[in-house]
Amino acid sequence: MTVEAESHAASEPTVCPVSPVVIIGAGLVGASVGMALTKAGVEVHLLDRVKSHAVVAAGLGAGEFTPIDPALVRTVVVAVPPDAATKVIRASLTKYPNAVVTDVASVKQRLHDRLADDGVEVSRYVGSHPMAGSQHSGPLTAVAELFVNRTWVITEDAENPQWAVDRVQHLAELCGARVVHMASDQHDEAVAQVSHVPQVMSSLTAARLREIPAEHLTLAGQGVRDVTRIAASDPVLWRQIITANAPAIRRELEAIRADLDQLLADLDTPEQVEQFIDRGRQGAHALPGKHGGAVQTYESVVVQIPDAPGALARLFADIDAAGVNVEDLSIEHDATREVGYLSIAVSVVQAPALRAAMRDAGWSLRA
Amino acid sequence: MTVEAESHAASEPTVCPVSPVVIIGAGLVGASVGMALTKAGVEVHLLDRVKSHAVVAAGLGAGEFTPIDPALVRTVVVAVPPDAATKVIRASLTKYPNAVVTDVASVKQRLHDRLADDGVEVSRYVGSHPMAGSQHSGPLTAVAELFVNRTWVITEDAENPQWAVDRVQHLAELCGARVVHMASDQHDEAVAQVSHVPQVMSSLTAARLREIPAEHLTLAGQGVRDVTRIAASDPVLWRQIITANAPAIRRELEAIRADLDQLLADLDTPEQVEQFIDRGRQGAHALPGKHGGAVQTYESVVVQIPDAPGALARLFADIDAAGVNVEDLSIEHDATREVGYLSIAVSVVQAPALRAAMRDAGWSLRA
Repeated sequence: MTVEAESHAASEPTVCPVSPVVIIGAGLVGASVGMALTKAGVEVHLLDRVKSHAVVAAGLGAGEFTPIDPALVRTVVVAVPPDAATKVIRASLTKYPNAVVTDVASVKQRLHDRLADDGVEVSRYVGSHPMAGSQHSGPLTAVAELFVNRTWVITEDAENPQWAVDRVQHLAELCGARVVHMASDQHDEAVAQVSHVPQVMSSLTAARLREIPAEHLTLAGQGVRDVTRIAASDPVLWRQIITANAPAIRRELEAIRADLDQLLADLDTPEQVEQFIDRGRQGAHALPGKHGGAVQTYESVVVQIPDAPGALARLFADIDAAGVNVEDLSIEHDATREVGYLSIAVSVVQAPALRAAMRDAGWSLRA
Repeated sequence: MTVEAESHAASEPTVCPVSPVVIIGAGLVGASVGMALTKAGVEVHLLDRVKSHAVVAAGLGAGEFTPIDPALVRTVVVAVPPDAATKVIRASLTKYPNAVVTDVASVKQRLHDRLADDGVEVSRYVGSHPMAGSQHSGPLTAVAELFVNRTWVITEDAENPQWAVDRVQHLAELCGARVVHMASDQHDEAVAQVSHVPQVMSSLTAARLREIPAEHLTLAGQGVRDVTRIAASDPVLWRQIITANAPAIRRELEAIRADLDQLLADLDTPEQVEQFIDRGRQGAHALPGKHGGAVQTYESVVVQIPDAPGALARLFADIDAAGVNVEDLSIEHDATREVGYLSIAVSVVQAPALRAAMRDAGWSLRA
C-alpha cells in the first residue's frame, strides 16, 4: 500500500503534493484552512452537511463546491464537530482511495482508538490538530491567517508511512503553522492543560456574572473581559470536547480544586495570598512568547535618572537615537544613596552599542 | 467648614475647580491620572516616596515635582498601595487644609471605617476607584488615556458635602471616565465579583502552568493567554487587595467551588457539561458593551443565499453599497427547504433602508 501510494504520488502531474484537497466541514476552522490553501494556490473543494455553509465559505474564497473525482483527491481535511469526526474519517478513507485523510479535532486518543477498533485500515489517516480557533463559529468568521505562527500538532502513529505524515505537515505549513509532532495521548493531556481547563475556568468565572446585579457589571474592566472571552464559545462544541477528554480534564480540575481549597483556608493570611498570586505570575510567565519563539536573553543597561524633568526627556530621546530595540524599561531605586536608575533591557548583541551611546551622550551608567 | 470651603472655592481665581492637584504616588494609576489632568490643562504636582518615580512620571508629562503651598491645593489624589492608603489620606487631610482628598484604592469599606475610627474629620475625604489598570505597574507604563470611557466609582457617604463630591466627579470626568456613585460596601461586593474573583481564577489557572512540561506549553493558543493575562499582576498589590476584601471574595469563591464540584460530578454527562458551558456563555454575554454603552437592539434583514459563489460576492458588495453599519452576520438554514439565509443585523433605524436596497438589487428576502 505504501509503495503503491508513493509511486502514485510520484506519477501525479500536480506541482503541489497536497492538491487537490477536499475539506469536509466549512465552519470556522474548515473555511479558514480552505482560504489559506486557496491563497497558497492549492485546489480546494468544500463539502458541508449544511450546503449554505459551503456556499458562503466558497463565496469568501475558501475554495469551490463543484464535484471532483474522488480518485484524484490527494488530501482530505475532516473539519467537522468532534462527535462526527470518527464517522466522517472512516467514510472518507473509503470514498477517497488515494488520499491522505487528516482531521482537526481537539481530542485525539479516543479517535485513534475508535478507528482501530472498527478495523479500519488507518495507515492513510494522520491525525492533526491546529491550535487555533476563537469563541466564534461558522464560515463568516473564517480568515486565511488563522493559523499563521500557530502550533499545528500532528499525532501520527506507527502505522503511518512517512510520506503520509509529510503530506499533512506540508498542508499545515502552507497554512503558515508551525508543526509539532506528539503522541495522541500526550497531545490530549497537553490540550487538557493549556486549552480545555482554561476554557472550564473561564466558564466558571463567567457563569457567576449571571447571578450578580446589572449595576455591579458596570464596574467590569478589561481583566474580567479577558478572563471570560472564551466563555462565549459554542456549548455544543465544548460538550463534545470536554466529554471526549474527561479523564485528563478531571485530573487537572482536581488539582485546581485542591489549590482553591488551600486559598480559601489561607485567605486571611497575607503572606500565603501573596505566594498564591506569585505562583500564578510564574505560570503566566512560563507561557512561551506570543509567536512561540524561544525565550530571548536580554542585558540591562542601567542609567542614573537625572533630577530635572527636562533632562529625562533628553535621556529618552538619546535612547531612541541609539537605534537599539528596547525590550523593557524599568525603574530601580537605591534607597541608601537616594538615587534612581532607569534599567533598559536590550538584546545581548545590542547592549555594548547602547552603553557606548549613553556614555557618549554624557549619562552616568551604573557599573 | 462646608460654607468656608465653598466661599474659598468661589473666591479662587483658577478657572478649573479641581486645580491645583497634588498626586501622591506616581505609579501606573497616579502617573496616568497626572498625564490625563495635565493634558486637560490642570496644574499637577507629583509626590512619591521613591523620588525617581516622581521624576520619571514628571518626565513623561504627568505633572511637576516642584513644591507648592499646601493651602493652595484644591484636590489631592492618593494613589498609593492599599495598605498605605489610610495613613496617607489621614496625613493629607491635615497637610492640605483646603483640599478635597480622594484615593484610588480598590477596596473602600475598610478604608472608610478606619478613617472614622481614627476620629479623623472625614467630610473632605471622598473615596473613589477608577476601574482601570493593567498587569503592569510603575510610571513607565502610564498613559493619559487609561481612564477614557472606563467606569470611575465614587463612594461618597453622608458626611460629604455635595461640592466635595462634585470636585472628585469633575476630576474623574477630566480623565475621560464615566462616573458611577455607589455605597462603599456595595462597591466592595461588586469589585469582588467583577475584578477580584476573576483575578483569583486567572491566578489559579496560571499556577497550574508551572507544573506542566515545557513541550505542552507550546500548544498554548490565544485562549489560555487571555485567561491568564492578569495573573501576571503584582503579587504585593494583590495581597493587599485580596486581604482587604476577603469576606466578599470568600462568598464568591465558595459559590465557584460548589459549581466546580458539580461539574466534576457531571463531567461524564454530556447534557450537564453543555449546560455548564452555556451558563458561562450567558454570563460572558451579560457583560455590558466594551464602552459600557447600553445594549442596543438590532433588527435582522434576512436574505436568501444564492447558490453560485460569484453571486454571493455580489451580495456582500450590495450590502456594503447600502451604506448601513452591519452589526452582525450569521447564517441560518432551513433544513426542510434545503435553503440557506444570510441574516444581517443592523440598527432598527437602518433596517428599512437595507431591506429596500436588497429588494432593489434583486435579492430574495425572507418575510
